[in-house]
Amino acid sequence: MGRDDTHNYLIAPNPGNTRLTRVVQGVDEAGKAADIPVVEERPLTVFLNGQEIVTAMTIGDYPEYLALGFLRNQRMLQLGESVTGVDFDEELETVVVRTDGSTTYEEKLKKKTRTSGCAVGTVFGDMMEGLDDLTLPKALVHTSWLYTLCSIINRTPSVYLEAGAIHGTVLCRQDNPMVYMEDVGRHNAVDKIAGWMLSEGEDGADKILYTTGRLTSEMVIKCALMGIPALVSRSGFTAWGVDIAREVGMTLIGRMRGARFTCLSGEDQLVRDAEPKHVQDKKAR
Amino acid sequence: MGRDDTHNYLIAPNPGNTRLTRVVQGVDEAGKAADIPVVEERPLTVFLNGQEIVTAMTIGDYPEYLALGFLRNQRMLQLGESVTGVDFDEELETVVVRTDGSTTYEEKLKKKTRTSGCAVGTVFGDMMEGLDDLTLPKALVHTSWLYTLCSIINRTPSVYLEAGAIHGTVLCRQDNPMVYMEDVGRHNAVDKIAGWMLSEGEDGADKILYTTGRLTSEMVIKCALMGIPALVSRSGFTAWGVDIAREVGMTLIGRMRGARFTCLSGEDQLVRDAEPKHVQDKKAR
Repeated sequence: MGRDDTHNYLIAPNPGNTRLTRVVQGVDEAGKAADIPVVEERPLTVFLNGQEIVTAMTIGDYPEYLALGFLRNQRMLQLGESVTGVDFDEELETVVVRTDGSTTYEEKLKKKTRTSGCAVGTVFGDMMEGLDDLTLPKALVHTSWLYTLCSIINRTPSVYLEAGAIHGTVLCRQDNPMVYMEDVGRHNAVDKIAGWMLSEGEDGADKILYTTGRLTSEMVIKCALMGIPALVSRSGFTAWGVDIAREVGMTLIGRMRGARFTCLSGEDQLVRDAEPKHVQDKKAR
Repeated sequence: MGRDDTHNYLIAPNPGNTRLTRVVQGVDEAGKAADIPVVEERPLTVFLNGQEIVTAMTIGDYPEYLALGFLRNQRMLQLGESVTGVDFDEELETVVVRTDGSTTYEEKLKKKTRTSGCAVGTVFGDMMEGLDDLTLPKALVHTSWLYTLCSIINRTPSVYLEAGAIHGTVLCRQDNPMVYMEDVGRHNAVDKIAGWMLSEGEDGADKILYTTGRLTSEMVIKCALMGIPALVSRSGFTAWGVDIAREVGMTLIGRMRGARFTCLSGEDQLVRDAEPKHVQDKKAR
């Protein structure tokens, strides 16, 4: 392929950003000293108006997108709710998201905190609630797109290629990767994409989401809440992730490496326009 | 090696347990129908006395150990606090841990919920608090043990080998793997080991913890709180994980695959009694 790997990205990884990795000294198995690049991991506390919501461990780029996407995927920000400000304070490691008027979430949190005693368990419940009656739009997925996407993504310079120990998520349209986010928390990478989509008013219906992480219930739910009808991963599945994908009509593809993949939901949306045997079995991300 | 892979385990994985995996129908890249085993993922809500604490997503085995270990690693259960009951209700998907007298945690939670508005962010803070002034006991780590451990662990029948998409953590003493837990959440696997150690009154000082997960701050903190002076992973590091390991005096070994590994903390505790070139480069877990 002569295609420039990165020129089509709206946002590509930035492995040259010196805030994202650090070189530490260590030794290898033979006792030889080595300089090892490792990813940074920083706490980021998200506030919604006056309310502290969560502290996420993140690599630290795009804190505003992470906060917006997290709140939206938790349905703490309602669709169409007007965001009046997103303020990141690097020193305090906080992002404050402001909306006009008080949010419905603050009342909800108060109620949940009272009834269940602690808000920790509500995070998941909030997401499940958003799934009620959700059915994703139908959207064909060409297998040739999948092979092209994986080929480009695997060769894109990234923090992963530099330092490892980080997950990546890529928002794609057909065979074009558009926004490639990385994070130490795999859900953060997805939330940063959700934040970007919310900021840009981008719709999920014509998109494919690629992730290096496993296709767990939480990953499938986030993708569904983002309105994206196809989710692709190099990793495997959980049973509940498969159940939810089938319920909402998502095309779910896992164990995608080289020519191989497994489709456990939405195979009627697959258009087989590429011969697997012609796909080179490149080292997958 | 003629050594029986599993006979020394006190607890080994149980891939034959039909509650842990399910076969779902899918198609492969060529459109061929395939039966794919996938791991189960179930919610489990942990209560401490009358207080709901957290809902974890878990594969579902050893719920009592998971609850006990989570509470202990969060320092919601104090050392020496008397646990009067641990009741798992399969239908309700709950575990209630009971202690004699009210716990200090309930007062703490009330305070934190008031000051920070939401308890979500306190989970991490609680763990960090437990690290104050913690210094792990010195303990030599023989490189021959590491190679033997990895060789046994990689060949041990497991849910991972059956269905993938699951993390494993193994409590070891010298070159003997003792307790091998698996879970869809990598922290759950560690917490289940912590619960087993608490139940058995097992000390961490002479142990090595092996994990398939990355060496993030949370993983290093949990290992430190369990009093285990050596943590080994096939995966990579985060900078904060390395910082904490150095602060508490933990031997931290990552990227362990075949003969190769990287040691980023506590290399003075390594005893190099195995020649890396004699280690076969087997496919690592």
